[in-house]
Amino acid sequence: MTIEWVFLDVGGILFSDASYFTSLYEAIAAAEPSVERAAYDARFDALRAAQSEPFTEALVTAFVADASLHARVRADADERWELRGYSEAELYPEVPAVVRALAARYAVACITNHFSWVRDRARDAGFADLIRVWAISDELGVSKPDPAIFSAALREAGAAPDRVVMVGDRLDRDVAPAKALGMRTVWVLRNEAPDEPTPEQLVVPDATVRSLDELPEIVDRF
Amino acid sequence: MTIEWVFLDVGGILFSDASYFTSLYEAIAAAEPSVERAAYDARFDALRAAQSEPFTEALVTAFVADASLHARVRADADERWELRGYSEAELYPEVPAVVRALAARYAVACITNHFSWVRDRARDAGFADLIRVWAISDELGVSKPDPAIFSAALREAGAAPDRVVMVGDRLDRDVAPAKALGMRTVWVLRNEAPDEPTPEQLVVPDATVRSLDELPEIVDRF
Repeated sequence: MTIEWVFLDVGGILFSDASYFTSLYEAIAAAEPSVERAAYDARFDALRAAQSEPFTEALVTAFVADASLHARVRADADERWELRGYSEAELYPEVPAVVRALAARYAVACITNHFSWVRDRARDAGFADLIRVWAISDELGVSKPDPAIFSAALREAGAAPDRVVMVGDRLDRDVAPAKALGMRTVWVLRNEAPDEPTPEQLVVPDATVRSLDELPEIVDRF
Repeated sequence: MTIEWVFLDVGGILFSDASYFTSLYEAIAAAEPSVERAAYDARFDALRAAQSEPFTEALVTAFVADASLHARVRADADERWELRGYSEAELYPEVPAVVRALAARYAVACITNHFSWVRDRARDAGFADLIRVWAISDELGVSKPDPAIFSAALREAGAAPDRVVMVGDRLDRDVAPAKALGMRTVWVLRNEAPDEPTPEQLVVPDATVRSLDELPEIVDRF
């Protein structure tokens, strides 16, 4: 067995980010009341298909013309999100059992563009004790796809990249940079991932799944 | 003449970041009173030599053991910095004349991991009117070395990467990602850059300078 660690993204992997994208829509609509949810959702789907831009920046830029308001809109979305997310319905149903199965055989870390409060939501959901390392962008001051957040997680884990599987829903921010550092990668097709990826996208990760059910078995095979 | 745009980093290029690193030291010392300035400065110099880590993260991690305090220490440093920076002494003396010379022949943009208030400091220093595009990480929600901030700047400028020169003091966050996108690059050896770069480092940028004096002539030659 060469794999020792499984690095899990949080949004799209453990919890749906639905509450974040609703919060972001509300923050945008507070700044630009004419923006309709349908237009926002259509842009969101285009971003899912492309897998090449940070969603928040792209959505705020698309709908709020005045760049000097962008930081405030983002902060407003983050505040709304902290109040709202994650609801019980946002926890993907297979997560507690799968994290338990992984933690029985591997060390498990979370590596996420997120805030400290995500730890509390993992505690509420009952699996926080199974996460050995948390690499959280707001605490570290660096975000995926910056290799520095992956390096910080590896350092904290005391792990070599070839002993790690990275599991995420973004091709550009999770899969591609982890692969560049020498990790194995699993792409999860939900949340920010497209429903129907292109053949070019599908060759990037080592494995692709639609839920985490098969994940322990896939990691065992690496 | 193939070059149309000059993208300038701000810290290290237009202003010294001395006031930031003093603010960060004070924020660290507020959290960990035993940390001495000499130890902090020594770590800072090691980071300058390596050019491979985000300085703030690395310094906070080195001196503040409790990771759950890191975001607060960073925010404290940012607040202190906004009150203090940039002093008149931090404006590099050749900057006003060089920006004027560049703006006479090229379009000039600033692309910086920074806050909106940097625009006010450029105005105080008298060259804000010469900057056609501002790409500021706190407004865009993405930071160098993420290619997304370079793409946002290119989009806003309406420029192709091969028509752009990127000027920065960081090999890993300014020079390398700009080069990867097809820009020409100038590395400025001050602020976060090392005094004595290695031969391996020196082959990465297209040109290396110690002040901006030669910059207009270098850009003309590209």
